[in-house]
Amino acid sequence: METKRLTNPAAEEILGGYFPVLDHGFVSLVDYMGSDESIERAARVSYGAGTRKVSQTKGLIRYLRRHHHTTPSEMVELKFHCAMPMFVARQWIRHRTASVNEYSGRYSLMPLLFYRPDPEHFARQSEKNMQGRDAAAAPEALYREAVERWERSRRAASGDYAWLVGEDVARELARIDLPLSTYTQWYWKIDLHNLFHFLTLRAAPNAQWEIQEYARLMAGMLKRVAPISFEAWLDYNFCAEPFSRGELEALALLLEPGEDGIRVRSGAGQVTADEMKGLGLSPREIQELGEKLQPRTVPDFDLELSRMRTAEDVEKEMYQAVPGAFE
Amino acid sequence: METKRLTNPAAEEILGGYFPVLDHGFVSLVDYMGSDESIERAARVSYGAGTRKVSQTKGLIRYLRRHHHTTPSEMVELKFHCAMPMFVARQWIRHRTASVNEYSGRYSLMPLLFYRPDPEHFARQSEKNMQGRDAAAAPEALYREAVERWERSRRAASGDYAWLVGEDVARELARIDLPLSTYTQWYWKIDLHNLFHFLTLRAAPNAQWEIQEYARLMAGMLKRVAPISFEAWLDYNFCAEPFSRGELEALALLLEPGEDGIRVRSGAGQVTADEMKGLGLSPREIQELGEKLQPRTVPDFDLELSRMRTAEDVEKEMYQAVPGAFE
Amino acid sequence: METKRLTNPAAEEILGGYFPVLDHGFVSLVDYMGSDESIERAARVSYGAGTRKVSQTKGLIRYLRRHHHTTPSEMVELKFHCAMPMFVARQWIRHRTASVNEYSGRYSLMPLLFYRPDPEHFARQSEKNMQGRDAAAAPEALYREAVERWERSRRAASGDYAWLVGEDVARELARIDLPLSTYTQWYWKIDLHNLFHFLTLRAAPNAQWEIQEYARLMAGMLKRVAPISFEAWLDYNFCAEPFSRGELEALALLLEPGEDGIRVRSGAGQVTADEMKGLGLSPREIQELGEKLQPRTVPDFDLELSRMRTAEDVEKEMYQAVPGAFE
Amino acid sequence: METKRLTNPAAEEILGGYFPVLDHGFVSLVDYMGSDESIERAARVSYGAGTRKVSQTKGLIRYLRRHHHTTPSEMVELKFHCAMPMFVARQWIRHRTASVNEYSGRYSLMPLLFYRPDPEHFARQSEKNMQGRDAAAAPEALYREAVERWERSRRAASGDYAWLVGEDVARELARIDLPLSTYTQWYWKIDLHNLFHFLTLRAAPNAQWEIQEYARLMAGMLKRVAPISFEAWLDYNFCAEPFSRGELEALALLLEPGEDGIRVRSGAGQVTADEMKGLGLSPREIQELGEKLQPRTVPDFDLELSRMRTAEDVEKEMYQAVPGAFE
Repeated sequence: METKRLTNPAAEEILGGYFPVLDHGFVSLVDYMGSDESIERAARVSYGAGTRKVSQTKGLIRYLRRHHHTTPSEMVELKFHCAMPMFVARQWIRHRTASVNEYSGRYSLMPLLFYRPDPEHFARQSEKNMQGRDAAAAPEALYREAVERWERSRRAASGDYAWLVGEDVARELARIDLPLSTYTQWYWKIDLHNLFHFLTLRAAPNAQWEIQEYARLMAGMLKRVAPISFEAWLDYNFCAEPFSRGELEALALLLEPGEDGIRVRSGAGQVTADEMKGLGLSPREIQELGEKLQPRTVPDFDLELSRMRTAEDVEKEMYQAVPGAFE
Repeated sequence: METKRLTNPAAEEILGGYFPVLDHGFVSLVDYMGSDESIERAARVSYGAGTRKVSQTKGLIRYLRRHHHTTPSEMVELKFHCAMPMFVARQWIRHRTASVNEYSGRYSLMPLLFYRPDPEHFARQSEKNMQGRDAAAAPEALYREAVERWERSRRAASGDYAWLVGEDVARELARIDLPLSTYTQWYWKIDLHNLFHFLTLRAAPNAQWEIQEYARLMAGMLKRVAPISFEAWLDYNFCAEPFSRGELEALALLLEPGEDGIRVRSGAGQVTADEMKGLGLSPREIQELGEKLQPRTVPDFDLELSRMRTAEDVEKEMYQAVPGAFE
Repeated sequence: METKRLTNPAAEEILGGYFPVLDHGFVSLVDYMGSDESIERAARVSYGAGTRKVSQTKGLIRYLRRHHHTTPSEMVELKFHCAMPMFVARQWIRHRTASVNEYSGRYSLMPLLFYRPDPEHFARQSEKNMQGRDAAAAPEALYREAVERWERSRRAASGDYAWLVGEDVARELARIDLPLSTYTQWYWKIDLHNLFHFLTLRAAPNAQWEIQEYARLMAGMLKRVAPISFEAWLDYNFCAEPFSRGELEALALLLEPGEDGIRVRSGAGQVTADEMKGLGLSPREIQELGEKLQPRTVPDFDLELSRMRTAEDVEKEMYQAVPGAFE
Repeated sequence: METKRLTNPAAEEILGGYFPVLDHGFVSLVDYMGSDESIERAARVSYGAGTRKVSQTKGLIRYLRRHHHTTPSEMVELKFHCAMPMFVARQWIRHRTASVNEYSGRYSLMPLLFYRPDPEHFARQSEKNMQGRDAAAAPEALYREAVERWERSRRAASGDYAWLVGEDVARELARIDLPLSTYTQWYWKIDLHNLFHFLTLRAAPNAQWEIQEYARLMAGMLKRVAPISFEAWLDYNFCAEPFSRGELEALALLLEPGEDGIRVRSGAGQVTADEMKGLGLSPREIQELGEKLQPRTVPDFDLELSRMRTAEDVEKEMYQAVPGAFE
């Protein structure tokens, strides 16, 4: 269709396509509003007349993001259609500044699809991160037994659910013993500012791996809607680190601004853990400071277009998983 | 403790007490801020000096609520500690204008407590309300089989969970096959305006019965924090009905303002369904209009103080349900 | 440009056009996302495949609005560029669920444009509405003196501002004595649900007349984005009235549901003011009930396309009002 | 009054006291909910039974803040009564996650009090900060002429306003030519998380100096409500700095984690501006990096209790400034 609205061909290319996530989930970008240029227009409260150079747009957007002027990035919106296990949905919904319409288990029959972790992401409790898992996978035998148990419990849950709805028990009651691994789906609309906040938290390595998978895919989608903002977010948020008052004091013992750039202070060699303790840093903060000085890789989050599926195809799979459907 | 803050003795009486809901759930009012008088002060932007008569406060608060001046009621806050089945938590969390801290299944072991409906609330799918249940209970035999199935699946889910955490599998993975009937808990803080909105939707008869139980209890708690506002909410919101443009036209065919009150128009007898159709009302709206003219009972939501339990008592029960605890 | 997004030709027709409001203000719809169909898709969490009949979309949207299922209407967004006097901006900004970027008087020079009421909207304090004005205009002589005073004070304010910025005094200080009638402008983005809430309050007769003018124009714009939702809002919100518990009881003394529609109760003639007092209604509520039974006219909010101006044209006028510009 | 709620004696000491800001403004802490301990309880979803050591509370709160776990700090609320010039109010109201009730110029007569900058804060446009003022004051002669102009325009605005309301012109119209320097007032309620965000932006040196004065005072008030959180905010937010991806790479060229703390890389001496350009830093970012390595002073924001005034005293002054009052 013809439109006078700002349009981004890279976003149009994937609009309405469904990208698989985990074993039965998906994310589809179903609508968007605006682009990098909308952010500039709003920041300048401009009339939109005349054309701007891309380099000017880029300079402004990077300046805004670096200086936490986040309101102009609220002027871009993205709308997704997503399917995810309920334990993922429960983490996701904590982000309140979004609009959501979820598939209703009170009104509709649930597709009986459940998330089964892959062996390489099945792991023991992490010793470092009290709410996460080990980087290394758990032993294969342990995984095999877990899978057996999952399969048994899901067969039972599916059977019970089908029996209850077969007896015409209210759907809102029939679903109460479905496991948290059951897939649900929703429409989810959010502005770019709040999406960046979501991605910063949920594509981070300490988020549950399963929700990271969704975040990475959505990052790749927004990169197609607002590429300059995406790059600025990588540089100033996702791959950035805050330095506390005490950490800044530790840095300033070693480094200083020079006439041409920054330089090591004359005679400076190190700041010991004891000295950092004197600046108020806890043992854990001292370790974290060391980690901030390590090199890191910059992700690109590019989409694999070959994985894109059609709406019809995905819809069919979902309906076939509803008990009693197509019989 | 001594405080200069506005304090309500009726709220203090229940502060920190735990009221049971469903079979293993609870709600406790753990903190509050303000009272009816705070709403008046904010509406008048007053210095708080001098005393006001209760009748003036009442008149103002009822006026504000009747005319949708809702911002002053944001000046009162309530904080609750609640435990509820996850399928209830998932409906609850849709209300975004609240602050929440939920018990983390990634970090902590889950108490293995599950919601089992009572026989009188176990019912078939409603024919009237496509997302609800019948008013009448389902046959006892059906209930008995459902209970058997629930017990079997919960024993299995508990066993699987205990086995997985016993093998030190990451908690964030061990919990994925817990059923939606598993109890979770959270701290939940909300202002009075948004709490009224929550209660209007969730204490309504078309909400799922289980969340209604929570809403009714919380309504009884807020009645102790801000009794004048509570009464105004009953009169102007909870027990009120909107009349659409077409419904108003139908009413105006039968009634008119008189010199002393309102009166039946001379010669008016009825408005037929056909006439209402002519005013734009659908068959369903015509039926709804009839229902609005039926008498209804006004709930009081008073708390039964004898049901109040101590924090220690409730905490102990919850901890005993954690696998491996107290062994 | 080509897009796969939902597109509404009636909205495209006015996109980027500037509609005058008051003497120097304007509203322009600069972007939009979605349509009535997006609301249906979100409500059904649908895959968007296949076509729906308009009558089905309409039935669903009217049902959703009548039953306060407002979340699907959050799926539509509108973005406006607006110019308004600061006293209007101060009322407008109270609506917090919107995104705003305002022209900065710290960074930029202010155009010296001031709002001057027309004689027909210059009125004395209302005796009925303690925060409004009389329906009738004030005497012409009074208006003439007011205009003289406004002109004098605006000339002085303009002179002082031009002098201060001419002396290179910081702009954030130079502007502190500009009057509240000075025009400012902003980009303003809001979803349909929250826009309806804004319009319900700000197009209402008890809002300040000046902001009503903006609300009416924006209502006309949204009618072009989502016409079915617009009509449902008129019927179920803007032209609807709530009836309190006591008012419903008064109605039920006179009317009852019949076999075919609703009818006057046998023998019923009137409910007197005394009887209504007995039902808990205050004298003011008794009067308000009478007013709800009066016929009212339904606005259409249609735009006058002939008033639409180009961005270039409006921009030029605004820049010419900046002191020192174009000299 | 007696309460079972968490209570902080340092906050009680100032509760309801009025602290002057600028020439006619004030801030008063009129209510609060919770304390550092509430944050801990919410984070642990605890039953509040038993006592915790302060050192445990402190460790947890600092951990939460350092790792951006901000939701528990939403569990504390502060409510202020404030008076400020309207140009300050217009910046302040941009923070949307707060509850506000403002004095209504439609309903009430405005006190005719205007903000007059002190000579030391009257300055020319900054050359470094395009939206701010010079650090140094403008020449005295310039200030004197500005004061004369302000006095003239305020006398005129006061006269016009008094004449209009004397003629019973609607208040909503009478006030449209009051200058932006006119004082207004409001009740403002916000949770601790959002208050920290407000203070981070508004107590920062690039905020307009006048709103900084308010922010500093409110920081001193919250320090009395939640002192551990306050200190954590100073260390991890207010006195912290983000380092971008490129800046981290520059640091990593000079520094590395050592066995005991951090150390200068062997042979490292400096990173030149050219090298930083190669890492993607703009000239402005290179300068900003140098500034981050400068020592800075840590503010304490302590209140001067001797400046605290009573509500009665402040109220009297405000009412005397209403035209026609007390005559």
